[in-house]
Parts: sequence; structure tokens; C-alpha cells
Amino acid sequence: MSAYPTAFETALQAAIDGKTKPLGALGRIETLAARLARIQGTLKPRAKTCSLTIFAGDHGMAQAGVSAFPQDVTRQMVANFLTGGAAANIFAKTLDISVSVVDAGVAGAPIRHPALIDRKVAPGTANAIEEPAMTDAECRKALEFGLEIGRTAQTDAVCFGEMGIGNTSSASLIAAKLTDLPVGALVGAGTGLDNDGLLRKRALLEKAASRTPSHLDADTALREYGGYEIAMMAGAMIGAAEEKRIVIVDGFIAGAAALCACAIAPDCEASFIYGHRSAEAGHARVLEALNASPLLDLDMRLGEGTGALLAWPLVKAAAAMLCDMASFESAGVSGPAAGVSP
Amino acid sequence: MSAYPTAFETALQAAIDGKTKPLGALGRIETLAARLARIQGTLKPRAKTCSLTIFAGDHGMAQAGVSAFPQDVTRQMVANFLTGGAAANIFAKTLDISVSVVDAGVAGAPIRHPALIDRKVAPGTANAIEEPAMTDAECRKALEFGLEIGRTAQTDAVCFGEMGIGNTSSASLIAAKLTDLPVGALVGAGTGLDNDGLLRKRALLEKAASRTPSHLDADTALREYGGYEIAMMAGAMIGAAEEKRIVIVDGFIAGAAALCACAIAPDCEASFIYGHRSAEAGHARVLEALNASPLLDLDMRLGEGTGALLAWPLVKAAAAMLCDMASFESAGVSGPAAGVSP
Repeated sequence: MSAYPTAFETALQAAIDGKTKPLGALGRIETLAARLARIQGTLKPRAKTCSLTIFAGDHGMAQAGVSAFPQDVTRQMVANFLTGGAAANIFAKTLDISVSVVDAGVAGAPIRHPALIDRKVAPGTANAIEEPAMTDAECRKALEFGLEIGRTAQTDAVCFGEMGIGNTSSASLIAAKLTDLPVGALVGAGTGLDNDGLLRKRALLEKAASRTPSHLDADTALREYGGYEIAMMAGAMIGAAEEKRIVIVDGFIAGAAALCACAIAPDCEASFIYGHRSAEAGHARVLEALNASPLLDLDMRLGEGTGALLAWPLVKAAAAMLCDMASFESAGVSGPAAGVSP
Repeated sequence: MSAYPTAFETALQAAIDGKTKPLGALGRIETLAARLARIQGTLKPRAKTCSLTIFAGDHGMAQAGVSAFPQDVTRQMVANFLTGGAAANIFAKTLDISVSVVDAGVAGAPIRHPALIDRKVAPGTANAIEEPAMTDAECRKALEFGLEIGRTAQTDAVCFGEMGIGNTSSASLIAAKLTDLPVGALVGAGTGLDNDGLLRKRALLEKAASRTPSHLDADTALREYGGYEIAMMAGAMIGAAEEKRIVIVDGFIAGAAALCACAIAPDCEASFIYGHRSAEAGHARVLEALNASPLLDLDMRLGEGTGALLAWPLVKAAAAMLCDMASFESAGVSGPAAGVSP
């Protein structure tokens, strides 16, 4: 921001400071409220409804042994999301958030379920350790499907989650190529590798990273290292931001998608609220690159959008603070005593 | 806990680990769920309903210039709570939490409002810088009123908030006497003193602290340094814990009340969930004394129970995780691949 606040910024700060509370006493809820106001361009931001869209996709890399879980789990978890049994469903239900599940590229036969949104680009990516994860056309398709999903979301705020065995590997490679960091700085235990597994994963990802230059643009990084679910999520973030929706960004995988979204459409970052700090090792680096301070730090590392979901009540409270809380004037409450700086 | 887990602890950990997620991937939500299970002695803890009770009281010390705000603000804020305009009301409304307001000892004439719960012990405490804030009988009465309120709460979880100009001073003195720390280590800017104000407050509190020995028991500390609202809140915490309610503890003032509650009835601590880390300087010391790691850290320092309120969705989500989330078995999801430690 410039040294001279705009009329909007002045009015916004006055609205926050006029509420019946000591100056600044709501801390990050105040800065969050201000950000919501800026996203929507109004002193009365609306944050009444929220949805979660979970993108699922498989990774050729999973077959190489980068994950503690077998690849089938992606498909099994899609079924779990559809029957409402996963952590994301449970959290969303307690928070009154609607859940949609998108097949972005799950391996194997088509999944038939009336509630599943079929945007399958292909049945899993190629093995990115050896070759590009997807073609140019597939990458474009994933981004475009995502854009449309983000643009047509029906809620004030959107959370995007993901499921894909092997996708911390994909996210590590993408984030490394966008931030110019060595991939080793972004590798973590994912779903729970032991030390040997972590060393194997790291060696495999270093091999994968060595296939391409140390810096890639977002489209190339997505195409080389994939994740249909990651590309689609990046598109959805851009689409939702275009429509001035509040985009609540989840953890490590979503962070890699956010890096791509910001590289492709820098303006979208203004709509992002960072939900939580993941315990996955590489997330700290991704957050630094995004210049982000997440709202929650609960040592979680599940994905599925769970960290974004849990931040939603804070977003809702921040908007309500700005919209509905009494001012000193309206409530007839005295300000700080004369002679005492507040 | 002993080195040999009980059957309950073994079953609890198995229930958490059997959920469809990598081992430990929900981090603090898992440890929170376990705590809820222990509070209620069941693997299916209930956290569906929550209430906030705000205790208001005035402090003789306020007249001495320990606060940035005039004493009248306590009374004005009670009116604000009753008409639903304060931050606590706004947050509670977005979170579906019911709010009650208790006059524990507001100065001046009786406040007439059909929704106000009148438990006024006296119209404000005496000036604790010079003399005991209340009599033995008044202290007992405040604790007993609180006990009854805590015991008869109608919700699974309870948040307790407070309002009282001057009560960070009262809380600092109480916490100092219970933890044997110099009061200077617990003094902060409260509602927003400037540097001169903070120096004056510190000098006044050192004078107040010098009236009594460096360690006091909880009843004596409450009687000497008061806060009808703090004593009543301590009683309410004990009463709610007796009934196996989940007690979500707010910030600095509530922390001082929690220290008193734990000193009076040590078992009650097992029912406490610490909602947030306050930006008020002394809270870190209070949390250390309670061995507490709060769920949220949002740079807030408002009181009113606002930090406890915002933690409620996490409590609700944690209970729902344990009660409703699918297991690997029930959802037919594969565990970690053979040969890979999860």
C-alpha cells in the first residue's frame, strides 16, 4: 500500500477502530476483516456461505514408491468422500460447509456415483520421475476445468482440497521449480514415510528434478510434475478469485497450487486467506514464497482441505465483526479516558 | 499417564489411529479429541452445544488510573452485551453459541434488564492497591454463585468471559501471588495503555503486591485483589468441570481464574481446553503455570470470552472426528503399503 491511504482504506480502518473494543484488541481477526473488505471492495464483506471442492487425481510416481500408501487409496478415498466418512466430510458437516468431489484424474475404470463431478483428464499422470506427467493439452484442460469450477462456485468463500497418493511428491517438485529451491528443501514424510522411505523419496525426487532446469514457469512445472488435481485446483483458485470469492487456501499441496495460480494470474493472490500451517516439512518454504501467515497452526498434515475448513469460522467471525458489531457511537460506550492514549 | 496405558487409553488411541487418515495427520485435533474423550470418559464424546457466560464486575483500582478506559465502560459494555452488539455477541452468533450476562459486581445502581442474571455481590470491589478488594464472605459468595452457574449450565461445552475495567490489574496480581512471580512479570498494557500509563500501572501494582506475602492461596489472592467476576468465573469453571462439561478457557483474565480454580479444586484442570494465546503480556506466564498450549494464537487481547468462542469449532470438529469419521475397516480403505512403516 502507498504511504497515503486511499479513502477506502481510511474508511475501513475507521470502521474497525470504531468498534466497541480497545484499539487492535481483536488482532488478526481485524486484519482478516480488512482483507475480506478489500477482496469484495466493501466495508460490509459477506461471508455467510462456504463450500469445499475436493479434487482427486493419481500420480504415475506413486508406483515408484514415493508414498507410504498404495495408489488404490486415492480411489478408495473418493468413495469415502462420497459416502461422507472422511475427515473433510466430518469437519465440513460440523461447520455447515457443502462438499463436492471432482474426479480430476483418478487411475483405473471410471467411478460411477451420482454425486461425483467427472472432470477426469486422464486416468492418472505418467511417471514424472522419468517423463513429463502430462501433455500440454492435458495441462490446459485441467486448468480450464478448474477455472470453470472456481468461477461457478455458489458460495461467498471456497475451500479447495485434494486427494492423490503421491501428491506431496508432485507438490514438492512444482514448488521447487517455482521457487528455485532444491527439491530436497521441500521434501517431507507425506502420509508417513519412515526414514528409509524418506531417503528413497528424496532420491527419486532429485532424479525427477534433474530432468528439467532449476526454474520453470507454472504451466511447465505442472505439465512436467503433474497432478491433475493440483492443476485443476490452481485453475479453481484463479476462477474463484476472478469472481471475488474468498479463497481459503489449505496446506502443502494447495500451497503448491496457489504458487501456480499466483504465477499464472498474479491478481488472484489478493483473494487468498491462508487457512493453516501444515506439519508437512516443505510447507514453511511454500508459505515464505507466498509471503503468507496462516491463521491456524495445529500440526495437521492431512490435506483434503481440512486445514482450510477449520479456518472458515474465523473468516465468518471477521466478516460479522465488520458488518454487525456495535460502534462506540452506536452503543453509547465511552472511549479511552482523556489524557490516556488508547 | 502411567507407562502402561489403561484399556480405555489403548482403545482411545486405536479408535483415533483407525480413522481414514495417515497416522497422526490431524495433529492437535487428535490430541484434542482424546482429551474430550477423557473428560467425558467415553470414546464418543459429545460436543454439540456450547454456551458463553460473561461475568461483569468493577474494580476499585480502576479509579487509581490502571486502565486506559473509564470505569463506566464496564456498565456500558454490559448494556452492549445485552443488546447483542459486542464482539462476543457477534462471534457467538456466527458460531451458534448462546450468550448469558451475569452482573457479578458492577458499580453503581442496579442494572435492570430482563435478560441480565443478577448475582451482584457488591457494587464493585474496594481499591486493592490500598486494602483487600473484598471480604471473606463476599469472596465465598462470588465463588458459590459461580459454582452454581457452572453446575447448571445446559450445554456440552462452556466458555466463560469477563468484562471489568481494571481487571487485567486484578488478574496480574492474582496470577503473581499464585505463581510466586513478581507482579511486574505479569503486567501488560491491558486495554491499551501507552508507555507512561504502563509504568504507572506497574508502580501501582507493585505497591498493591507489597501489601501481602509473595505467595497466597487462591481464596486469599481473590479476596485481596479481587474481581467478583474473576472469583465467580473460577467457581463456574469448577462447577462445570464437576459436571464433566468441556470448559474452554479464554485469555489472560480467564487464565488467572483458571489458576484459582485449579488451586481450589485440582481435578477441574482435566476438563479445561485452552482456547487461545492472548497478546496481553502476562498470559504467557499464566499459560506456563497451567502447562497449557492454547489452540489459537491470533494476537487477540479483548477478553469477553472471544478467544474461547473461536476455539469452539475446533472442539466440535475434534469430537465429530472421533464419533463420526469412518475407519479404514468401515470404509474399505487400504492401510500403509507392506514394508513401509506408517
